[in-house]
Amino acid sequence: MFDVGKIAIIGGGSWATAIAKIIVGHTHHIGWYMRRDDRIEDFKRLGHNPAYLLGARFNIDEIYFSSDINTIAEAYDTLVFVTPSPYLKNHLRRLKTRLQDKFIVTAIKGIVPDENLVCSEYFHQVYDIPYDNIACIGGPSHAEEVALERLSYLTVGCQDLEKAKAFTRVLASEYIKTKTSADVVGIEYSSVLKNVYAIAAGICNGLKYGDNFQAVLISNAVQEMNRFLNTVYDLKERNIYDSVYLGDLLVTGYSNFSRNRTFGTMIGKGYSVKSAQIEMEMIAEGYFGTKCMKEINRHMHVNMPILDAVYNILYERINPQIEIKLLTDSFR
Amino acid sequence: MFDVGKIAIIGGGSWATAIAKIIVGHTHHIGWYMRRDDRIEDFKRLGHNPAYLLGARFNIDEIYFSSDINTIAEAYDTLVFVTPSPYLKNHLRRLKTRLQDKFIVTAIKGIVPDENLVCSEYFHQVYDIPYDNIACIGGPSHAEEVALERLSYLTVGCQDLEKAKAFTRVLASEYIKTKTSADVVGIEYSSVLKNVYAIAAGICNGLKYGDNFQAVLISNAVQEMNRFLNTVYDLKERNIYDSVYLGDLLVTGYSNFSRNRTFGTMIGKGYSVKSAQIEMEMIAEGYFGTKCMKEINRHMHVNMPILDAVYNILYERINPQIEIKLLTDSFR
Repeated sequence: MFDVGKIAIIGGGSWATAIAKIIVGHTHHIGWYMRRDDRIEDFKRLGHNPAYLLGARFNIDEIYFSSDINTIAEAYDTLVFVTPSPYLKNHLRRLKTRLQDKFIVTAIKGIVPDENLVCSEYFHQVYDIPYDNIACIGGPSHAEEVALERLSYLTVGCQDLEKAKAFTRVLASEYIKTKTSADVVGIEYSSVLKNVYAIAAGICNGLKYGDNFQAVLISNAVQEMNRFLNTVYDLKERNIYDSVYLGDLLVTGYSNFSRNRTFGTMIGKGYSVKSAQIEMEMIAEGYFGTKCMKEINRHMHVNMPILDAVYNILYERINPQIEIKLLTDSFR
Repeated sequence: MFDVGKIAIIGGGSWATAIAKIIVGHTHHIGWYMRRDDRIEDFKRLGHNPAYLLGARFNIDEIYFSSDINTIAEAYDTLVFVTPSPYLKNHLRRLKTRLQDKFIVTAIKGIVPDENLVCSEYFHQVYDIPYDNIACIGGPSHAEEVALERLSYLTVGCQDLEKAKAFTRVLASEYIKTKTSADVVGIEYSSVLKNVYAIAAGICNGLKYGDNFQAVLISNAVQEMNRFLNTVYDLKERNIYDSVYLGDLLVTGYSNFSRNRTFGTMIGKGYSVKSAQIEMEMIAEGYFGTKCMKEINRHMHVNMPILDAVYNILYERINPQIEIKLLTDSFR
């Protein structure tokens, strides 16, 4: 039976913290790479992440922190990457440790820029890691709710289902239910696309479209997602209404906690992209995702009117009102 | 080309009022049957429905009101039924007019009790109306939003697609987009089931399950709905993510306007069925729908764990906490 060995978390945001909390509840030891030493010091002093999920308390004795990614990568067998996708390459650039023998898990919901690859493809193509050693974590999961131990369902994708199964064992608990899937690439793309659609939902909300239209938008988004996934990787067993696809879209598209939806709402209300980003003090991940997906789809030629509309609004400065009006005509 | 002729509305609630407003905008004349003379008098005096959608104003000269269903049924060619399903038979009992030559449109989202039939089946079996003359209106559509002229998408189902198309012409406008479908029975059943699932969503909300779980619940509800529809009427062209199925489920399951969801939330918070109904001053349609669907499924034997759970909570007085806990184990 596959042994996930010693597990380390790479990244210090809210989803990284939620996943760390879940895993350390099983293993009672994790490694944890964070970029900033001051954050690590504060974490140790406070017993919780000083910047995210302040309510999730940790036993500091169970964590080996380091701001040196090599120290962590050398000492641990399974590396769970949970950085924002635009920064992944920066972290990896410092890495001198061989990754080929590691079990790589990505919980990154985004595309690696420039290469325009989802993370599993990036690790495979650039770091030569066999697909059997790459897994992903997906599913509808606001980190905040996981931290509150509210029941959530996570899916572990890996082409080697035995390894996926093994990794679910360090996730499953009273409040985390798990399942496995062979559809790594499909799960990764869907978790990027759902952010794009959450921005679209926000834009329509900001433009004062109502719940009736919102439901039509999301119904069309599921179909658009399905068309794209079937083109990029046609997998018979994929069921687009599984919680890892549809559920993840719903939780992001319908929740007021969603940063992408909030960003979209501001755009719909007439904020410029720049002023929305300043106001939110952060950049919604779907902003990058939209550009990457648009570029990827230039070669795929999938009919993706919602993606196109969000791209036109965010990057071509087309008036949201005009763009969404056109979109409504394409819907069924 | 099929001519819908003169159109009358049967029923005086909020959805009836919204549909009347849409149609009279095209035809500039409708007949309207309402049970209560005092309501009709108030309507004429005020220029709007005195009890529902007070903001939707009508030109009273364009409406012929009557509290006598026979007067209306005789004088009009297309009869749009929009009563609550439990009262449909009471209204029809007074009817002496032949319906066979009428074009019957049902916008009733419910099951006819005792017979346990959706309305199209009821009109066909009991009133001998050929299926070609029976249509239904479906789609995600809070009446309140339609009254505010917020963009909404309606689907007209009829086995005779020409007739469906003809009827869409009196609905389509700046704020109503339409399409047609041959799946009358599927649309009707899905509009009953979505109320059951909205109650389930409310119950989980009342029990303090979060957005993550809600998304899993709705993903599973779509699949359950699909299983049932495929069993009751296997139609190749049906696409369960069309807005008339998935969209209608979303608008009901996610909206705080939904009476069924509100009813469920109260049940989840520990109210008894009786006290929730008294508190709401009304009975959520899904309460009846749950019982009817449970009975229908006794012969169908479709795997419907969500329907079963709602039934057990509402009718067998099983503790919601226990019942939902069991349900979570059946989910994927």
